[in-house]
Amino acid sequence: MPSISVKGQNMPESPIRKLVPYAEKAYKENKKVYHLNIGQPDIKTPQIAMNAVASHSLDVLAYSRSEGSEEYREKIAQYYKKNQIDVDADDIIVTTGGSEALLFAMGSIADAGDEIIIPEPFYANYNGFATASGVKIVPVISKIEDNFALPPISEFERLITPRTKAILICNPGNPTGYLYSKEEIQTLASIVKKHDLFLVADEVYREFTYDGFEHYSILQEENMSENGIIIDSVSKRYSMCGARIGCLVSKNKNVIKTALKFAQARLSPPTFAQIASEAALQTPQSYFDDVINEYEDRRNTLIQHLQEIPGVKAGVPKGAFYCIVELPVKNSDAFAQWLLEKFDYNGETIMVAPAAGFYSSPGVGLNQVRIAYVLNKESLIKAVKILKVALEQYRD
Amino acid sequence: MPSISVKGQNMPESPIRKLVPYAEKAYKENKKVYHLNIGQPDIKTPQIAMNAVASHSLDVLAYSRSEGSEEYREKIAQYYKKNQIDVDADDIIVTTGGSEALLFAMGSIADAGDEIIIPEPFYANYNGFATASGVKIVPVISKIEDNFALPPISEFERLITPRTKAILICNPGNPTGYLYSKEEIQTLASIVKKHDLFLVADEVYREFTYDGFEHYSILQEENMSENGIIIDSVSKRYSMCGARIGCLVSKNKNVIKTALKFAQARLSPPTFAQIASEAALQTPQSYFDDVINEYEDRRNTLIQHLQEIPGVKAGVPKGAFYCIVELPVKNSDAFAQWLLEKFDYNGETIMVAPAAGFYSSPGVGLNQVRIAYVLNKESLIKAVKILKVALEQYRD
Repeated sequence: MPSISVKGQNMPESPIRKLVPYAEKAYKENKKVYHLNIGQPDIKTPQIAMNAVASHSLDVLAYSRSEGSEEYREKIAQYYKKNQIDVDADDIIVTTGGSEALLFAMGSIADAGDEIIIPEPFYANYNGFATASGVKIVPVISKIEDNFALPPISEFERLITPRTKAILICNPGNPTGYLYSKEEIQTLASIVKKHDLFLVADEVYREFTYDGFEHYSILQEENMSENGIIIDSVSKRYSMCGARIGCLVSKNKNVIKTALKFAQARLSPPTFAQIASEAALQTPQSYFDDVINEYEDRRNTLIQHLQEIPGVKAGVPKGAFYCIVELPVKNSDAFAQWLLEKFDYNGETIMVAPAAGFYSSPGVGLNQVRIAYVLNKESLIKAVKILKVALEQYRD
Repeated sequence: MPSISVKGQNMPESPIRKLVPYAEKAYKENKKVYHLNIGQPDIKTPQIAMNAVASHSLDVLAYSRSEGSEEYREKIAQYYKKNQIDVDADDIIVTTGGSEALLFAMGSIADAGDEIIIPEPFYANYNGFATASGVKIVPVISKIEDNFALPPISEFERLITPRTKAILICNPGNPTGYLYSKEEIQTLASIVKKHDLFLVADEVYREFTYDGFEHYSILQEENMSENGIIIDSVSKRYSMCGARIGCLVSKNKNVIKTALKFAQARLSPPTFAQIASEAALQTPQSYFDDVINEYEDRRNTLIQHLQEIPGVKAGVPKGAFYCIVELPVKNSDAFAQWLLEKFDYNGETIMVAPAAGFYSSPGVGLNQVRIAYVLNKESLIKAVKILKVALEQYRD
């Protein structure tokens, strides 16, 4: 029997994957499970996008251009210009989701064994893309006490080695909901300029900012034209996670030229999804206003109710739709399993994502979970009530 | 300015990419260009697949399961059973095209620096996936004189090292059109069993066999359940290259478990494309009968007319829709460029894929091109006439 190689075995599992059998057990026992663990919004996809696909008139579902169709990239560039990001169609490569944009970025800027510094906690799948690309993630810890603000410059500089190729941020952040300020982006810009690194920003939650705060993109910094790479996606913006369309954006021609080779190897992004995504760019502002209001309302509800539970500490997210919550438990992994396997409150329970999987440093975040507020307010209130009762009953 | 790393720069370009500017020049000069260089069929996508998407009733375009929906995988398993390949839904991971299935396979079975032996000429993008995965391709030459039959066992065994993890074949072959016999598959099976290797078979052209020959899959060999991995795709089968749906198939649970981690990192395959692909499985046999007849007819026409040109040698493909053609030129790269840049016959010319890009050994295939017979018969006859006139005029 052939032996499976180390590389494949090093691929990390999603932080919630080992909970899935317990969730399935809970379903079998007819427990109602409130899913606070996933980033699949319940928001409707804009009708204009769904209609564009339903009214397609294609005879042959052919390959598109590897970098995405010219028309679509032109329209994406207009979208960025409206968002004060001055890029052209040639600076954009359409990808199969933000996931593929991350893979292309890592493959283009880092060789096997090279290092990328990422503030943690970070989106768990960065681990997977790094492993697949042979890249080493070097974490720099951001703290719940600081609401996950940017760690000081000295913390980054301490970690920079000759193999460091980039700093990667997620802004607004999954799993923290943290929104970097203009000053923090400028701080990052100064570090990468000084050390000749790339600054890769996963900005897929750009639209989701609250309390009147505005997103500030790395490519709004003029001196980032050679160093900056934006990772983007339609998944959350238009509630079209299943489309699998994203893009990689950079003014650095070498980056685009190299990423294009990765794009050409896999031929093209999906055609139907490009049709939907191009149409989605015409989504009226009122759609976003409604969605942002809804999320802000949910966030306020969630945080308010969480803060009423003794021993629970929640950062206040300024963007995206996640927050990291510290619980009065020793091991949130065991607690999350217990919630599904052993506990119910009137036949209902919750599923949360243990936060340790969002940290690369071992032993950090063990008493934290990530909560996604992608449920309606009523469900969120019920879910937090369940959490409260559960914490009263739970013994480590 | 940050320096772009070696890894990205090592990503190979597609063999025809450097011809693209010359093709664009030809368009500008209003030359009609017959495209013999690409694998985009002109065949209509089955109406049942296109209708399924047009009549979708989704409100939220949500993620699907990372491994593909249960229903779709069940139906794929039925398709395989009909094709004498005894696999279950659990043996299948739905991927974003055959491209991603290849990436998952390489990532799952090989560590950086490991080796995969591939008979050449081979599908050029194998180079890209290998580079992205850090895997080294070790070519074993198959010869146009032998019509690209499997090289002798001794040729493979000569190349096996402790780092060899797999043999990868494309059957029927792109770019050769070669269809491996049952005996050749059994020979490969015996080599991989003896040396504890995987046998990865890209079988995306399974349906396209001519002259009454039948495709014999590696998973029809019972002893391949631990060693065999099939790469598959809907792209050519249903003329839906733009769907970007494929799958990885293996009875080896460790392979599936590891490939699933890669699948989970990128979240899910595209949803609309899965709807189209699931519906496509109901395509009536008459569709394939018509398509196969059309391709067989095109092949006969192409080969007959090619063989009438002095100095031209063409293998007779038994499957897929490509053939490698030897031309009386020294450098087919220069010839292909000349065809676009300097030549026309009554305002028309042809674009071919220089074959050197399909070889990994340097200096091999320089006088060969790949021709895809994805044009109708009338166009093929014109295109070969243009080739004949061009060869009469061309001086190396």
